[in-house]
Amino acid sequence: MAAKKSKKVMVALVQMRCGAKPEANLAKVVSAIGQAVKKGAKIICLQELFKTSYFCQTEDTKNFKLAEKIPGPTTDVLQQIAKTRKVVIVASLFEKRTQGVFHNTAVVIDADGSIAGKYRKMHIPDDPHFYEKFYFTPGDLGFKTVKTKYADIGVCICWDQWFPEAARLTALSGAQILFYPTAIGWLSSEKPSSCVAQHSAWETIQRSHAIANGVFVAAVNRVGVEKDITFWGQSFVADPSGKVITRASTKKEEILYVECNLSKIDEQRQSWPFLRDRRIDAYDALLKRVDDEG
Amino acid sequence: MAAKKSKKVMVALVQMRCGAKPEANLAKVVSAIGQAVKKGAKIICLQELFKTSYFCQTEDTKNFKLAEKIPGPTTDVLQQIAKTRKVVIVASLFEKRTQGVFHNTAVVIDADGSIAGKYRKMHIPDDPHFYEKFYFTPGDLGFKTVKTKYADIGVCICWDQWFPEAARLTALSGAQILFYPTAIGWLSSEKPSSCVAQHSAWETIQRSHAIANGVFVAAVNRVGVEKDITFWGQSFVADPSGKVITRASTKKEEILYVECNLSKIDEQRQSWPFLRDRRIDAYDALLKRVDDEG
Repeated sequence: MAAKKSKKVMVALVQMRCGAKPEANLAKVVSAIGQAVKKGAKIICLQELFKTSYFCQTEDTKNFKLAEKIPGPTTDVLQQIAKTRKVVIVASLFEKRTQGVFHNTAVVIDADGSIAGKYRKMHIPDDPHFYEKFYFTPGDLGFKTVKTKYADIGVCICWDQWFPEAARLTALSGAQILFYPTAIGWLSSEKPSSCVAQHSAWETIQRSHAIANGVFVAAVNRVGVEKDITFWGQSFVADPSGKVITRASTKKEEILYVECNLSKIDEQRQSWPFLRDRRIDAYDALLKRVDDEG
Repeated sequence: MAAKKSKKVMVALVQMRCGAKPEANLAKVVSAIGQAVKKGAKIICLQELFKTSYFCQTEDTKNFKLAEKIPGPTTDVLQQIAKTRKVVIVASLFEKRTQGVFHNTAVVIDADGSIAGKYRKMHIPDDPHFYEKFYFTPGDLGFKTVKTKYADIGVCICWDQWFPEAARLTALSGAQILFYPTAIGWLSSEKPSSCVAQHSAWETIQRSHAIANGVFVAAVNRVGVEKDITFWGQSFVADPSGKVITRASTKKEEILYVECNLSKIDEQRQSWPFLRDRRIDAYDALLKRVDDEG
Protein backbone atom coordinates (compact mmCIF):
# COMPACT_ATOMS: atom_id res chain seq x y z
CA MET A 1 0.00 0.00 0.00
CA ALA A 2 1.37 3.37 -0.93
CA ALA A 3 1.65 5.88 1.89
CA LYS A 4 -0.74 8.77 1.63
CA LYS A 5 2.11 11.24 1.47
CA SER A 6 5.34 10.63 -0.41
CA LYS A 7 8.35 10.50 1.88
CA LYS A 8 10.39 12.67 -0.48
CA VAL A 9 9.43 16.20 -1.32
CA MET A 10 11.27 18.72 -3.46
CA VAL A 11 11.40 22.12 -1.80
CA ALA A 12 12.35 25.36 -3.57
CA LEU A 13 13.45 28.58 -1.88
CA VAL A 14 13.28 31.77 -3.93
CA GLN A 15 16.13 34.11 -2.94
CA MET A 16 15.86 37.44 -4.72
CA ARG A 17 16.36 41.18 -4.82
CA CYS A 18 13.33 43.39 -4.28
CA GLY A 19 12.75 46.66 -6.05
CA ALA A 20 10.56 49.60 -5.21
CA LYS A 21 7.60 48.40 -7.31
CA PRO A 22 5.41 45.75 -5.72
CA GLU A 23 3.95 44.61 -9.04
CA ALA A 24 7.44 44.04 -10.45
CA ASN A 25 8.42 42.01 -7.38
CA LEU A 26 5.30 39.93 -7.70
CA ALA A 27 5.95 39.36 -11.40
CA LYS A 28 9.46 38.15 -10.54
CA VAL A 29 8.03 35.75 -7.99
CA VAL A 30 5.48 34.41 -10.44
CA SER A 31 8.25 33.76 -12.92
CA ALA A 32 10.39 32.04 -10.26
CA ILE A 33 7.51 29.81 -9.23
CA GLY A 34 7.09 28.81 -12.86
CA GLN A 35 10.76 27.82 -13.05
CA ALA A 36 10.59 25.93 -9.77
CA VAL A 37 7.56 23.98 -10.91
CA LYS A 38 9.41 22.91 -14.05
CA LYS A 39 12.25 21.60 -11.88
CA GLY A 40 9.78 19.49 -9.92
CA ALA A 41 9.43 21.57 -6.75
CA LYS A 42 6.34 20.75 -4.70
CA ILE A 43 6.67 23.30 -1.90
CA ILE A 44 7.91 26.75 -2.83
CA CYS A 45 8.79 29.24 -0.11
CA LEU A 46 9.21 32.95 -0.79
CA GLN A 47 11.33 35.33 1.27
CA GLU A 48 9.94 37.69 3.91
CA LEU A 49 7.84 40.56 2.53
CA PHE A 50 8.85 39.64 -1.03
CA LYS A 51 6.43 42.08 -2.57
CA THR A 52 8.12 45.20 -1.26
CA SER A 53 11.45 46.69 -0.45
CA TYR A 54 12.29 46.29 3.23
CA PHE A 55 10.38 49.39 4.25
CA CYS A 56 11.00 48.99 8.00
CA GLN A 57 14.28 50.90 7.77
CA THR A 58 12.29 54.02 8.59
CA GLU A 59 9.11 54.69 10.50
CA ASP A 60 6.75 56.26 8.02
CA THR A 61 2.97 55.97 8.03
CA LYS A 62 3.00 56.18 4.23
CA ASN A 63 4.27 52.60 4.17
CA PHE A 64 1.01 51.30 5.57
CA LYS A 65 -0.45 51.65 2.10
CA LEU A 66 1.75 48.71 1.09
CA ALA A 67 -0.33 46.41 3.26
CA GLU A 68 -3.17 44.32 1.90
CA LYS A 69 -5.95 42.04 2.99
CA ILE A 70 -5.53 38.29 3.22
CA PRO A 71 -7.17 36.88 1.18
CA GLY A 72 -6.50 39.74 -1.20
CA PRO A 73 -4.94 40.62 -4.52
CA THR A 74 -1.63 38.83 -3.98
CA THR A 75 -3.08 35.66 -2.52
CA ASP A 76 -5.56 35.63 -5.43
CA VAL A 77 -2.68 35.46 -7.89
CA LEU A 78 -0.74 32.88 -5.90
CA GLN A 79 -3.77 30.70 -5.20
CA GLN A 80 -4.49 30.50 -8.89
CA ILE A 81 -0.92 29.42 -9.61
CA ALA A 82 -0.89 26.90 -6.75
CA LYS A 83 -4.10 25.33 -8.05
CA THR A 84 -3.01 25.23 -11.68
CA ARG A 85 0.50 23.99 -10.95
CA LYS A 86 -0.49 21.75 -8.04
CA VAL A 87 2.17 23.19 -5.72
CA VAL A 88 2.24 24.47 -2.17
CA ILE A 89 3.31 28.11 -1.83
CA VAL A 90 4.47 29.81 1.37
CA ALA A 91 4.09 33.55 0.92
CA SER A 92 5.10 36.28 3.35
CA LEU A 93 2.93 39.39 3.12
CA PHE A 94 2.27 42.69 4.87
CA GLU A 95 -1.25 42.08 6.14
CA LYS A 96 -3.81 44.79 6.79
CA ARG A 97 -6.10 43.08 9.25
CA THR A 98 -8.21 46.12 10.01
CA GLN A 99 -7.68 49.86 10.22
CA GLY A 100 -4.64 50.36 12.45
CA VAL A 101 -3.87 46.66 12.92
CA PHE A 102 -1.20 45.26 10.62
CA HIS A 103 0.73 41.98 10.75
CA ASN A 104 3.79 40.42 9.21
CA THR A 105 2.03 37.32 7.96
CA ALA A 106 2.86 34.14 6.08
CA VAL A 107 0.17 32.37 4.14
CA VAL A 108 0.35 28.70 3.29
CA ILE A 109 -1.48 27.96 0.07
CA ASP A 110 -2.12 24.28 -0.56
CA ALA A 111 -1.76 22.52 -3.90
CA ASP A 112 -5.50 22.81 -4.56
CA GLY A 113 -5.29 26.60 -4.32
CA SER A 114 -6.93 26.89 -0.91
CA ILE A 115 -5.46 28.87 1.95
CA ALA A 116 -4.50 26.03 4.27
CA GLY A 117 -3.14 28.18 7.06
CA LYS A 118 -1.79 31.50 8.13
CA TYR A 119 0.97 32.48 10.55
CA ARG A 120 1.39 35.94 12.00
CA LYS A 121 4.94 36.75 13.10
CA MET A 122 5.00 36.35 16.86
CA HIS A 123 8.38 37.88 17.79
CA ILE A 124 8.72 41.40 16.45
CA PRO A 125 12.18 42.98 16.35
CA ASP A 126 13.06 46.58 16.87
CA ASP A 127 16.68 47.46 16.22
CA PRO A 128 18.31 50.31 14.37
CA HIS A 129 17.09 50.02 10.74
CA PHE A 130 14.67 47.22 11.61
CA TYR A 131 11.82 49.22 13.12
CA GLU A 132 9.25 46.48 12.92
CA LYS A 133 7.45 47.24 16.16
CA PHE A 134 6.15 50.39 14.50
CA TYR A 135 4.52 48.44 11.69
CA PHE A 136 3.56 45.00 12.94
CA THR A 137 1.20 44.03 15.73
CA PRO A 138 2.59 40.88 17.34
CA GLY A 139 0.91 37.73 16.02
CA ASP A 140 -1.99 36.13 17.85
CA LEU A 141 -2.32 32.81 16.07
CA GLY A 142 0.42 30.98 17.97
CA PHE A 143 2.82 28.42 16.55
CA LYS A 144 1.02 25.90 14.37
CA THR A 145 1.55 23.22 11.80
CA VAL A 146 -0.26 23.37 8.49
CA LYS A 147 -1.04 20.07 6.82
CA THR A 148 -0.48 20.33 3.09
CA LYS A 149 -0.63 17.87 0.24
CA TYR A 150 3.11 17.24 0.34
CA ALA A 151 4.18 17.66 3.98
CA ASP A 152 3.14 19.00 7.34
CA ILE A 153 4.89 22.35 7.57
CA GLY A 154 5.42 25.17 9.99
CA VAL A 155 6.29 28.76 9.21
CA CYS A 156 8.10 31.18 11.47
CA ILE A 157 9.38 34.52 10.25
CA CYS A 158 12.85 36.08 10.55
CA TRP A 159 13.27 37.33 14.17
CA ASP A 160 11.38 34.22 15.30
CA GLN A 161 14.44 32.25 14.25
CA TRP A 162 16.36 33.41 17.30
CA PHE A 163 13.83 31.86 19.68
CA PRO A 164 14.17 28.13 20.45
CA GLU A 165 10.64 28.26 21.85
CA ALA A 166 9.16 29.10 18.45
CA ALA A 167 10.88 26.20 16.74
CA ARG A 168 10.05 23.79 19.55
CA LEU A 169 6.38 24.71 19.65
CA THR A 170 6.01 24.48 15.89
CA ALA A 171 7.74 21.09 15.83
CA LEU A 172 5.67 19.80 18.75
CA SER A 173 2.54 20.70 16.80
CA GLY A 174 3.69 18.30 14.08
CA ALA A 175 5.79 20.21 11.55
CA GLN A 176 8.19 18.18 9.45
CA ILE A 177 9.76 21.19 7.80
CA LEU A 178 10.16 24.62 9.43
CA PHE A 179 10.26 27.46 6.94
CA TYR A 180 11.80 30.82 7.84
CA PRO A 181 11.06 33.60 5.33
CA THR A 182 13.70 36.17 6.25
CA ALA A 183 15.02 39.65 5.56
CA ILE A 184 18.34 39.94 7.36
CA GLY A 185 21.47 41.78 6.43
CA TRP A 186 24.48 43.76 7.44
CA LEU A 187 24.40 47.47 8.13
CA SER A 188 26.82 49.57 6.13
CA SER A 189 28.42 50.73 9.40
CA GLU A 190 29.40 47.21 10.49
CA LYS A 191 32.89 45.75 10.46
CA PRO A 192 33.60 42.67 8.32
CA SER A 193 34.41 40.55 11.39
CA SER A 194 31.08 41.46 12.93
CA CYS A 195 29.33 40.54 9.67
CA VAL A 196 30.88 37.09 9.65
CA ALA A 197 29.97 36.55 13.31
CA GLN A 198 26.37 37.60 12.73
CA HIS A 199 25.88 35.29 9.79
CA SER A 200 27.46 32.43 11.71
CA ALA A 201 25.14 32.97 14.68
CA TRP A 202 22.13 33.15 12.35
CA GLU A 203 22.89 29.89 10.60
CA THR A 204 23.97 28.19 13.83
CA ILE A 205 20.82 28.89 15.76
CA GLN A 206 18.64 27.66 12.92
CA ARG A 207 20.71 24.51 12.56
CA SER A 208 20.17 24.03 16.28
CA HIS A 209 16.40 24.06 15.76
CA ALA A 210 16.80 21.19 13.30
CA ILE A 211 18.95 19.31 15.82
CA ALA A 212 16.83 19.91 18.90
CA ASN A 213 13.61 18.98 17.14
CA GLY A 214 14.65 16.49 14.48
CA VAL A 215 13.06 18.47 11.65
CA PHE A 216 14.13 20.04 8.38
CA VAL A 217 14.78 23.78 8.57
CA ALA A 218 14.57 25.93 5.43
CA ALA A 219 15.51 29.60 5.61
CA VAL A 220 15.06 31.94 2.66
CA ASN A 221 16.63 35.37 2.81
CA ARG A 222 16.73 38.26 0.37
CA VAL A 223 19.82 39.65 -1.39
CA GLY A 224 20.78 43.08 -2.60
CA VAL A 225 21.45 46.46 -1.07
CA GLU A 226 18.53 48.58 0.12
CA LYS A 227 19.49 51.88 1.75
CA ASP A 228 21.68 50.95 4.74
CA ILE A 229 21.22 47.19 4.63
CA THR A 230 23.06 44.63 2.53
CA PHE A 231 20.85 41.57 2.72
CA TRP A 232 23.16 38.61 3.11
CA GLY A 233 21.28 35.91 1.19
CA GLN A 234 22.75 32.49 2.07
CA SER A 235 19.36 30.84 2.16
CA PHE A 236 19.85 27.24 3.25
CA VAL A 237 18.26 23.98 4.23
CA ALA A 238 19.42 21.88 7.18
CA ASP A 239 18.43 18.25 7.56
CA PRO A 240 17.10 16.85 10.86
CA SER A 241 20.66 16.25 12.09
CA GLY A 242 21.42 19.96 11.63
CA LYS A 243 23.66 19.43 8.63
CA VAL A 244 23.41 22.16 6.00
CA ILE A 245 22.53 20.26 2.85
CA THR A 246 22.47 23.27 0.55
CA ARG A 247 23.28 26.95 0.82
CA ALA A 248 22.80 29.85 -1.61
CA SER A 249 25.28 32.63 -2.37
CA THR A 250 25.51 35.96 -0.56
CA LYS A 251 24.64 38.11 -3.54
CA LYS A 252 22.92 36.27 -6.36
CA GLU A 253 19.26 35.85 -7.05
CA GLU A 254 18.72 32.12 -7.17
CA ILE A 255 16.28 29.33 -6.53
CA LEU A 256 17.55 26.73 -4.11
CA TYR A 257 16.26 23.21 -4.67
CA VAL A 258 16.38 20.51 -2.03
CA GLU A 259 14.86 17.09 -1.92
CA CYS A 260 13.77 16.48 1.67
CA ASN A 261 13.35 12.85 2.62
CA LEU A 262 10.83 13.04 5.42
CA SER A 263 11.66 9.54 6.64
CA LYS A 264 14.91 11.04 7.92
CA ILE A 265 12.82 12.55 10.72
CA ASP A 266 11.95 9.11 12.13
CA GLU A 267 15.54 8.04 11.79
CA GLN A 268 16.91 11.09 13.58
CA ARG A 269 14.39 11.16 16.39
CA GLN A 270 14.84 7.44 17.06
CA SER A 271 18.63 7.81 17.27
CA TRP A 272 18.54 10.94 19.40
CA PRO A 273 15.24 10.76 21.26
CA PHE A 274 15.20 14.23 22.77
CA LEU A 275 11.43 14.53 22.58
CA ARG A 276 11.14 11.41 24.75
CA ASP A 277 13.16 12.99 27.53
CA ARG A 278 11.87 16.56 27.79
CA ARG A 279 11.20 17.43 31.45
CA ILE A 280 7.78 18.97 30.93
CA ASP A 281 7.24 18.81 34.69
CA ALA A 282 10.08 21.31 35.19
CA TYR A 283 9.63 23.88 32.45
CA ASP A 284 7.10 26.20 34.08
CA ALA A 285 9.51 29.10 34.38
CA LEU A 286 9.72 29.27 30.57
CA LEU A 287 6.50 31.22 30.91
CA LYS A 288 8.28 33.93 32.92
CA ARG A 289 10.12 36.90 31.51
CA VAL A 290 13.08 36.35 33.85
CA ASP A 291 13.25 33.91 36.75
CA ASP A 292 14.34 36.48 39.30
CA GLU A 293 11.97 35.68 42.10
CA GLY A 294 14.59 33.64 43.92
CA MET B 1 34.08 52.39 43.42
CA ALA B 2 35.18 48.91 42.47
CA ALA B 3 32.43 46.56 41.36
CA LYS B 4 31.78 43.75 43.77
CA LYS B 5 32.58 41.16 41.13
CA SER B 6 35.35 41.53 38.59
CA LYS B 7 34.05 41.64 35.04
CA LYS B 8 36.78 39.28 33.86
CA VAL B 9 37.11 35.78 35.16
CA MET B 10 39.55 33.09 34.15
CA VAL B 11 37.85 29.75 33.66
CA ALA B 12 39.65 26.41 33.40
CA LEU B 13 38.20 23.20 31.97
CA VAL B 14 39.94 19.94 32.85
CA GLN B 15 39.72 17.50 29.94
CA MET B 16 41.17 14.12 30.87
CA ARG B 17 41.21 10.35 30.56
CA CYS B 18 39.69 8.35 33.37
CA GLY B 19 41.05 5.05 34.58
CA ALA B 20 39.43 2.25 36.53
CA LYS B 21 40.63 3.51 39.93
CA PRO B 22 38.60 6.34 41.44
CA GLU B 23 41.42 7.42 43.76
CA ALA B 24 43.82 7.76 40.85
CA ASN B 25 41.29 9.84 38.92
CA LEU B 26 40.78 12.08 41.91
CA ALA B 27 44.54 12.47 42.36
CA LYS B 28 44.81 13.53 38.72
CA VAL B 29 42.07 16.09 39.22
CA VAL B 30 43.72 17.47 42.33
CA SER B 31 46.94 17.89 40.41
CA ALA B 32 45.12 19.59 37.52
CA ILE B 33 43.40 22.00 39.86
CA GLY B 34 46.80 22.91 41.30
CA GLN B 35 48.11 23.68 37.82
CA ALA B 36 45.03 25.70 36.93
CA VAL B 37 45.31 27.75 40.09
CA LYS B 38 48.91 28.61 39.20
CA LYS B 39 47.75 29.84 35.80
CA GLY B 40 45.26 32.15 37.50
CA ALA B 41 42.04 30.21 36.99
CA LYS B 42 39.19 31.27 39.28
CA ILE B 43 36.48 28.82 38.24
CA ILE B 44 37.56 25.27 37.47
CA CYS B 45 35.12 22.84 35.92
CA LEU B 46 35.69 19.10 35.85
CA GLN B 47 34.22 16.68 33.33
CA GLU B 48 31.17 14.49 33.95
CA LEU B 49 31.73 11.69 36.48
CA PHE B 50 35.45 12.44 36.53
CA LYS B 51 36.10 10.06 39.40
CA THR B 52 35.19 6.90 37.53
CA SER B 53 35.32 5.27 34.16
CA TYR B 54 32.07 5.76 32.25
CA PHE B 55 30.37 2.81 33.91
CA CYS B 56 27.01 3.34 32.19
CA GLN B 57 28.08 1.24 29.19
CA THR B 58 26.57 -1.74 30.98
CA GLU B 59 23.76 -2.16 33.45
CA ASP B 60 25.36 -3.71 36.52
CA THR B 61 24.25 -3.21 40.09
CA LYS B 62 27.87 -3.56 41.21
CA ASN B 63 28.49 -0.07 39.89
CA PHE B 64 26.26 1.46 42.51
CA LYS B 65 29.11 1.05 44.98
CA LEU B 66 30.89 3.82 43.03
CA ALA B 67 28.32 6.32 44.29
CA GLU B 68 28.89 8.51 47.33
CA LYS B 69 27.14 10.95 49.56
CA ILE B 70 27.24 14.72 48.95
CA PRO B 71 28.78 16.11 51.07
CA GLY B 72 31.10 13.13 51.23
CA PRO B 73 34.68 12.05 50.78
CA THR B 74 35.24 13.68 47.38
CA THR B 75 33.59 16.97 48.21
CA ASP B 76 35.63 17.03 51.44
CA VAL B 77 38.83 16.94 49.42
CA LEU B 78 37.64 19.50 46.88
CA GLN B 79 36.18 21.86 49.46
CA GLN B 80 39.51 21.95 51.25
CA ILE B 81 41.30 22.83 48.01
CA ALA B 82 38.71 25.44 47.04
CA LYS B 83 39.07 27.12 50.41
CA THR B 84 42.88 27.04 50.45
CA ARG B 85 43.27 28.14 46.84
CA LYS B 86 40.31 30.51 46.82
CA VAL B 87 38.82 29.00 43.66
CA VAL B 88 35.38 27.87 42.60
CA ILE B 89 35.20 24.19 41.63
CA VAL B 90 32.40 22.56 39.63
CA ALA B 91 32.52 18.83 40.27
CA SER B 92 30.35 16.13 38.69
CA LEU B 93 29.77 13.13 40.96
CA PHE B 94 27.73 9.95 41.19
CA GLU B 95 25.53 10.78 44.15
CA LYS B 96 24.01 8.23 46.51
CA ARG B 97 21.07 10.14 47.92
CA THR B 98 19.57 7.25 49.81
CA GLN B 99 19.33 3.50 49.37
CA GLY B 100 18.08 2.94 45.84
CA VAL B 101 18.05 6.61 44.81
CA PHE B 102 21.09 7.79 42.90
CA HIS B 103 21.71 10.95 40.89
CA ASN B 104 24.16 12.30 38.35
CA THR B 105 25.00 15.44 40.29
CA ALA B 106 27.20 18.50 39.93
CA VAL B 107 28.36 20.34 43.01
CA VAL B 108 29.40 23.96 42.95
CA ILE B 109 32.00 24.67 45.62
CA ASP B 110 32.59 28.34 46.28
CA ALA B 111 35.97 29.96 46.86
CA ASP B 112 35.47 29.83 50.63
CA GLY B 113 35.12 26.05 50.52
CA SER B 114 31.38 25.99 51.07
CA ILE B 115 28.98 24.03 48.89
CA ALA B 116 27.18 26.90 47.17
CA GLY B 117 24.81 24.79 45.14
CA LYS B 118 24.01 21.45 43.66
CA TYR B 119 22.46 20.41 40.35
CA ARG B 120 21.03 16.99 39.66
CA LYS B 121 20.97 16.05 35.96
CA MET B 122 17.43 16.58 34.79
CA HIS B 123 17.46 14.91 31.35
CA ILE B 124 18.66 11.33 31.56
CA PRO B 125 19.69 9.57 28.34
CA ASP B 126 19.27 5.95 27.48
CA ASP B 127 20.91 4.89 24.27
CA PRO B 128 23.01 1.89 23.36
CA HIS B 129 26.13 2.09 25.58
CA PHE B 130 24.73 5.05 27.51
CA TYR B 131 22.35 3.25 29.88
CA GLU B 132 21.92 6.11 32.28
CA LYS B 133 18.25 5.57 33.08
CA PHE B 134 19.31 2.42 34.93
CA TYR B 135 21.59 4.35 37.24
CA PHE B 136 20.29 7.87 37.66
CA THR B 137 17.00 9.06 39.05
CA PRO B 138 16.02 12.21 37.12
CA GLY B 139 16.96 15.38 38.98
CA ASP B 140 14.44 17.19 41.14
CA LEU B 141 16.21 20.45 41.86
CA GLY B 142 15.31 22.20 38.63
CA PHE B 143 17.49 24.59 36.65
CA LYS B 144 19.18 27.11 38.89
CA THR B 145 21.93 29.68 39.07
CA VAL B 146 24.55 29.50 41.78
CA LYS B 147 26.06 32.77 42.90
CA THR B 148 29.78 32.34 43.48
CA LYS B 149 32.58 34.70 44.37
CA TYR B 150 33.62 35.14 40.75
CA ALA B 151 30.44 34.79 38.67
CA ASP B 152 26.86 33.62 38.72
CA ILE B 153 26.98 30.22 37.12
CA GLY B 154 24.67 27.46 35.99
CA VAL B 155 25.49 23.81 35.52
CA CYS B 156 23.74 21.38 33.23
CA ILE B 157 25.12 17.94 32.49
CA CYS B 158 25.79 16.21 29.15
CA TRP B 159 22.39 15.07 27.73
CA ASP B 160 20.90 18.33 29.08
CA GLN B 161 22.92 20.10 26.39
CA TRP B 162 20.52 18.95 23.69
CA PHE B 163 17.56 20.72 25.34
CA PRO B 164 17.13 24.45 24.65
CA GLU B 165 14.73 24.54 27.61
CA ALA B 166 17.51 23.66 30.06
CA ALA B 167 19.81 26.41 28.82
CA ARG B 168 17.01 28.96 28.69
CA LEU B 169 15.76 28.23 32.20
CA THR B 170 19.25 28.34 33.64
CA ALA B 171 20.00 31.62 31.89
CA LEU B 172 16.67 33.14 32.95
CA SER B 173 17.58 32.34 36.53
CA GLY B 174 20.64 34.56 36.17
CA ALA B 175 23.56 32.45 34.99
CA GLN B 176 26.38 34.28 33.23
CA ILE B 177 28.25 31.12 32.35
CA LEU B 178 26.64 27.75 31.61
CA PHE B 179 28.90 24.80 32.37
CA TYR B 180 28.33 21.41 30.76
CA PRO B 181 30.35 18.58 32.32
CA THR B 182 30.12 15.91 29.63
CA ALA B 183 31.00 12.35 28.70
CA ILE B 184 30.24 11.94 25.02
CA GLY B 185 31.95 9.92 22.37
CA TRP B 186 31.76 7.80 19.28
CA LEU B 187 30.89 4.14 19.29
CA SER B 188 33.42 1.85 17.65
CA SER B 189 30.72 0.73 15.21
CA GLU B 190 30.14 4.22 13.81
CA LYS B 191 31.25 5.50 10.42
CA PRO B 192 33.66 8.47 10.26
CA SER B 193 31.07 10.65 8.50
CA SER B 194 28.58 9.98 11.27
CA CYS B 195 31.22 10.87 13.86
CA VAL B 196 31.88 14.22 12.23
CA ALA B 197 28.14 14.95 12.02
CA GLN B 198 27.58 14.08 15.66
CA HIS B 199 30.36 16.30 16.91
CA SER B 200 29.15 19.14 14.72
CA ALA B 201 25.61 18.83 16.08
CA TRP B 202 26.95 18.73 19.64
CA GLU B 203 29.00 21.87 19.31
CA THR B 204 26.32 23.64 17.26
CA ILE B 205 23.52 23.17 19.72
CA GLN B 206 25.64 24.41 22.60
CA ARG B 207 26.77 27.42 20.60
CA SER B 208 23.08 28.07 20.00
CA HIS B 209 22.48 28.22 23.76
CA ALA B 210 25.08 30.96 23.99
CA ILE B 211 23.40 32.83 21.12
CA ALA B 212 19.80 32.46 22.26
CA ASN B 213 20.59 33.47 25.81
CA GLY B 214 23.56 35.81 25.52
CA VAL B 215 25.69 33.82 27.95
CA PHE B 216 29.05 32.07 27.96
CA VAL B 217 28.87 28.32 27.42
CA ALA B 218 31.69 26.06 28.62
CA ALA B 219 31.60 22.35 27.83
CA VAL B 220 34.17 19.93 29.22
CA ASN B 221 34.32 16.43 27.82
CA ARG B 222 36.54 13.45 28.55
CA VAL B 223 39.04 11.84 26.18
CA GLY B 224 40.31 8.31 25.76
CA VAL B 225 38.85 4.96 24.81
CA GLU B 226 36.77 3.03 27.31
CA LYS B 227 35.32 -0.24 26.04
CA ASP B 228 33.17 0.68 23.03
CA ILE B 229 33.31 4.46 23.36
CA THR B 230 35.99 6.83 22.12
CA PHE B 231 35.32 10.02 24.04
CA TRP B 232 35.78 12.87 21.62
CA GLY B 233 37.21 15.60 23.86
CA GLN B 234 36.97 18.97 22.08
CA SER B 235 35.97 20.79 25.22
CA PHE B 236 35.25 24.38 24.29
CA VAL B 237 34.03 27.77 25.39
CA ALA B 238 31.65 29.91 23.33
CA ASP B 239 31.19 33.60 24.02
CA PRO B 240 27.71 35.20 24.25
CA SER B 241 27.62 35.66 20.47
CA GLY B 242 28.09 31.90 20.03
CA LYS B 243 31.65 32.21 18.76
CA VAL B 244 33.94 29.38 19.88
CA ILE B 245 36.80 31.20 21.58
CA THR B 246 38.82 28.12 22.43
CA ARG B 247 38.61 24.41 21.71
CA ALA B 248 40.63 21.46 23.00
CA SER B 249 41.94 18.53 20.98
CA THR B 250 40.10 15.27 20.36
CA LYS B 251 42.57 13.04 22.15
CA LYS B 252 44.86 14.86 24.54
CA GLU B 253 44.47 15.45 28.25
CA GLU B 254 44.63 19.20 28.64
CA ILE B 255 43.44 22.12 30.66
CA LEU B 256 41.64 24.74 28.63
CA TYR B 257 41.97 28.31 29.90
CA VAL B 258 39.61 31.09 28.90
CA GLU B 259 39.24 34.58 30.20
CA CYS B 260 35.53 35.38 30.14
CA ASN B 261 34.69 39.06 30.11
CA LEU B 262 31.26 39.12 31.69
CA SER B 263 30.51 42.61 30.42
CA LYS B 264 30.19 41.00 27.00
CA ILE B 265 26.81 39.70 28.21
CA ASP B 266 25.40 43.23 28.50
CA GLU B 267 26.83 44.11 25.12
CA GLN B 268 25.37 41.05 23.41
CA ARG B 269 21.94 41.22 24.99
CA GLN B 270 21.62 44.93 24.22
CA SER B 271 22.52 44.37 20.56
CA TRP B 272 20.31 41.35 20.14
CA PRO B 273 17.56 41.75 22.73
CA PHE B 274 15.93 38.35 22.46
CA LEU B 275 14.98 38.24 26.11
CA ARG B 276 12.99 41.45 25.64
CA ASP B 277 10.85 39.87 22.95
CA ARG B 278 10.04 36.38 24.23
CA ARG B 279 6.30 35.69 23.82
CA ILE B 280 5.70 34.31 27.29
CA ASP B 281 1.97 34.63 26.70
CA ALA B 282 2.20 32.03 23.93
CA TYR B 283 4.55 29.38 25.28
CA ASP B 284 2.13 27.24 27.29
CA ALA B 285 2.41 24.24 25.01
CA LEU B 286 6.09 23.91 25.96
CA LEU B 287 4.72 22.13 29.01
CA LYS B 288 3.19 19.43 26.82
CA ARG B 289 4.93 16.30 25.58
CA VAL B 290 3.60 16.81 22.06
CA ASP B 291 1.00 19.32 20.92
CA ASP B 292 -1.25 16.79 19.23
CA GLU B 293 -4.58 17.83 20.61
CA GLY B 294 -5.48 19.79 17.48
